[in-house]
Amino acid sequence: MLGLMMQGQLTLTGIMRHAQENFSAREIVSITADNPRHRYTYGDAFARAAQLANALRKLGAQSGDCIGTLAWNDHRHFELYYATSCSGLVCHTINPRLFSEQITYIIRHAEDRWLFVDPAFVPLLEPLADDLSCVNGFVILCDQARMPATTLRNVFCYETLLTQESADFSWPELDEQSAAALCYTSGTTGNPKGVLYSHRAMTLHTYGVLMPNAFALQDDEAVMPVVPMFHVNAWSLPYAAPVMGAKLVLPGQKMGCGETLCTLIREEEVNAAAGVPTVWLALQQYLRETGLEIPSLQRVIVGGAACPWSIMQEFEERNGVYTHHAWGMTEMSPVGTFNGRLPESIRPEERKQRRLKQGRAAFGVEMRIVDDSGKRLPHDGIAFGALQVRGPWICERYFKSDVSALTSDGWFDTGDVATIDPDGYLGITDRTKDVIKSGGEWISSIELENIAVAMPEIQEAAVIGVAHEKWDERPLLVVVTVPGAEVDTAEILRRFHGKVARWWIPDACLVVDAIPHTATGKISKKDLRIQLADYCWPEMLPA
Amino acid sequence: MLGLMMQGQLTLTGIMRHAQENFSAREIVSITADNPRHRYTYGDAFARAAQLANALRKLGAQSGDCIGTLAWNDHRHFELYYATSCSGLVCHTINPRLFSEQITYIIRHAEDRWLFVDPAFVPLLEPLADDLSCVNGFVILCDQARMPATTLRNVFCYETLLTQESADFSWPELDEQSAAALCYTSGTTGNPKGVLYSHRAMTLHTYGVLMPNAFALQDDEAVMPVVPMFHVNAWSLPYAAPVMGAKLVLPGQKMGCGETLCTLIREEEVNAAAGVPTVWLALQQYLRETGLEIPSLQRVIVGGAACPWSIMQEFEERNGVYTHHAWGMTEMSPVGTFNGRLPESIRPEERKQRRLKQGRAAFGVEMRIVDDSGKRLPHDGIAFGALQVRGPWICERYFKSDVSALTSDGWFDTGDVATIDPDGYLGITDRTKDVIKSGGEWISSIELENIAVAMPEIQEAAVIGVAHEKWDERPLLVVVTVPGAEVDTAEILRRFHGKVARWWIPDACLVVDAIPHTATGKISKKDLRIQLADYCWPEMLPA
Repeated sequence: MLGLMMQGQLTLTGIMRHAQENFSAREIVSITADNPRHRYTYGDAFARAAQLANALRKLGAQSGDCIGTLAWNDHRHFELYYATSCSGLVCHTINPRLFSEQITYIIRHAEDRWLFVDPAFVPLLEPLADDLSCVNGFVILCDQARMPATTLRNVFCYETLLTQESADFSWPELDEQSAAALCYTSGTTGNPKGVLYSHRAMTLHTYGVLMPNAFALQDDEAVMPVVPMFHVNAWSLPYAAPVMGAKLVLPGQKMGCGETLCTLIREEEVNAAAGVPTVWLALQQYLRETGLEIPSLQRVIVGGAACPWSIMQEFEERNGVYTHHAWGMTEMSPVGTFNGRLPESIRPEERKQRRLKQGRAAFGVEMRIVDDSGKRLPHDGIAFGALQVRGPWICERYFKSDVSALTSDGWFDTGDVATIDPDGYLGITDRTKDVIKSGGEWISSIELENIAVAMPEIQEAAVIGVAHEKWDERPLLVVVTVPGAEVDTAEILRRFHGKVARWWIPDACLVVDAIPHTATGKISKKDLRIQLADYCWPEMLPA
Repeated sequence: MLGLMMQGQLTLTGIMRHAQENFSAREIVSITADNPRHRYTYGDAFARAAQLANALRKLGAQSGDCIGTLAWNDHRHFELYYATSCSGLVCHTINPRLFSEQITYIIRHAEDRWLFVDPAFVPLLEPLADDLSCVNGFVILCDQARMPATTLRNVFCYETLLTQESADFSWPELDEQSAAALCYTSGTTGNPKGVLYSHRAMTLHTYGVLMPNAFALQDDEAVMPVVPMFHVNAWSLPYAAPVMGAKLVLPGQKMGCGETLCTLIREEEVNAAAGVPTVWLALQQYLRETGLEIPSLQRVIVGGAACPWSIMQEFEERNGVYTHHAWGMTEMSPVGTFNGRLPESIRPEERKQRRLKQGRAAFGVEMRIVDDSGKRLPHDGIAFGALQVRGPWICERYFKSDVSALTSDGWFDTGDVATIDPDGYLGITDRTKDVIKSGGEWISSIELENIAVAMPEIQEAAVIGVAHEKWDERPLLVVVTVPGAEVDTAEILRRFHGKVARWWIPDACLVVDAIPHTATGKISKKDLRIQLADYCWPEMLPA
């Protein structure tokens, strides 16, 4: 028997309407190339999104077309998010940090009809343009006065387009299953793969991340996504903030600049911010250097990589800021887990261990860990296995793929290796492809890296498995040291004793000038393994 | 183009799984007829729900069957919620305060196959049993030792049934559109009408009520629903609490007892509680009499009727408790709006005016106000009209009705008259049928009642429209006075001056011993109008 409730559709248009009814006077503050502090309201933003939707229609965009964006975090990108998705188009955010060949590939694969481009990315696109025959033209995200000279064909000025249009647009009633947005993963092997988000998935994900043990935004708060809007919907904050009426503070292209982040936090009274660990390193360094305070900031959400304890500790002790671990991936919209605020009653050492974990599954995400044969492993906090997930905001298949991306019983394999404890806390111990298989047992490279980066002379660390005659693979520690630090590699290895099982301790420590990174800023172990393909173990092997 | 995300279904089974994975050690504490403080965990509860699901299958319950409950707020009722809905049955909660004829009507209308009954309600059912041929039998919610002697046929003991069953049950993968629960509205006219909730509606409603500006429960909190589980899902708290891992404190049949509520709050360290205004009056009176403190309690959610300012003020000033207004109805699962915590920065008088309103629409609910011709009225906080709503947890049609309950353009008319301000705050000014139409203009009976109950000598007040030769209708104020109070009705009427437009002031004030109430504890203006059908205006009419 079916229930008899309304079939209200879960769409991003619903988010827009909710914000218009309740929070039209709340602000969006942006840094753009042409304005160091652009400031307007959600009401203004959605009115301009309507103008943009009219413009897109005049440009010939048809329902289901992909519209590409190459843009930083600012109000125009926000307008693009809503104007495209809510008018039945697909908002395809393109990561400008990808290699040129990858950018060409994904624009062609998505068949983007129009590209909306920050002036800064015009030089990046010009050499690719001949290969982008699917693209009808380019819209530059600036006003007429700042239009760059360009070899791109069929170029429009964003602000000029908008002024010609009405702020009345009859937003269509969309099916919640319609595609809303598209983002490609920069996989380490093969071509990038597109994740085609539905309105339903985006809306449910927004509910999930707003829960009181997750982002928990309020209407008197300001939130700053220091995660790019060109990658995985900026962790859904451009949707979550308007739902709750939180002020949205968008740092433009200044996301890695400690001074900019500090200034925005202080002047816009930012309460919550989200980003990868490296941006917080930049902020903390700036705060140390200047002695400035950031009293409004209460909480920082860290994802994309495990957050070193030193960052969490410095935030807490120096700034009174609580750091929350979150974990997810492009295929998960992206949030899978969130480490909520722990009660004060938990004793310090357990607190620390818990806070270093990735947190509990958002309500809507189910997790399991399985062994090589697919058998479920216990959630005892000790057993570790391949992490698999399912739920309504998780990818079922990649864009234009005709095969499911799931296991035969309907779960998505994350490529991570993890533990889950009896209270549901996830602890990522490795990537499936990075886990080191030594003598038939698994060694977690991430756990070793966490120990290494906690050492004062080490700036960055990676542990990879290197072929070994007797044990198949043994861990090699590769480090970048703090500038000017004196390093004793034997001493570094000695410091692992007592912290992990003896057979986990790396067999050698290699100091390098730089560790390779992927386009999204993560350590590229694939490239590191290629660089070190000819590495030979030193004489002294473990007893 | 459709998105390519997993079709994870939104079901109450998902809530159960989420709680089992994350919060199986968190507690449910109940007062039952046989145990003054029953205490176990969510893990225990869901294991027993599995036993119950096995028992229901053995009793012959088939997918889609309605299973009736006549029960207070306790752990067994919680088990029934999940065992029925998650096994594909429909949890039909029956309000024991309805008239016998209504109870008979709804059991027959729902075709309940089995009734699960607290021992206290056995005497209520016995005289009706002959008319309940659809019911296969009765399960009494107690252990074998406390089984009452009864004339009911085919009677089972709940605890005995459970001990015979395994705690393994293979919960089916349900479609989110399946019916999960059924609740009848006690309409003031005609037969009660059933609202058949789907799993999807219940799940989305749970997301909605958990938002950070609404219930905002946390995993280190305890929440006490002082709203009956036999009426509108106890405002969804039996679903919301396990999603967040909040301890659930269930006061059994002692919901109106100030001493019990106080003891539970103090001993179980309750942080949040929800109920109608009258239960808080009882609690506040007990606290005044005993001088006891309730330091753990932070917030109280009030719905079902407008909360008098005096209750809010006393909670805030005496107990440091923040009172939140919420508004909804059976047809809305039930929550429509919630009045979140206001920033301290708002000045006191505006704060008070805002807090007396019903709050903002939950994300998922859309609201509009329309005039008699169905034309939309502005959201300016001044215009008032018929309040209409839509969204995925709002009733589309009543159970077994073959006509839609919606307007021709798909909105549900709430029967309320309201304003909506530019920030989305709803102010209920009246019921459509209670609004007083005087000289072609509308007068809000509720606004007048709020002024009356704020007077120290008035305990309860109702304003109804009484036929008037010249003005069609004029307002009559009917009051019950505080025991022992001296009352000067002319003085009472004088005190309205300056608070409302002169022509709104009631033409007379009538002191009565009691004002009639409905089965759900609200003032029954319908009955009051019948009682006063022969009322004649005194000589002195307004100038």
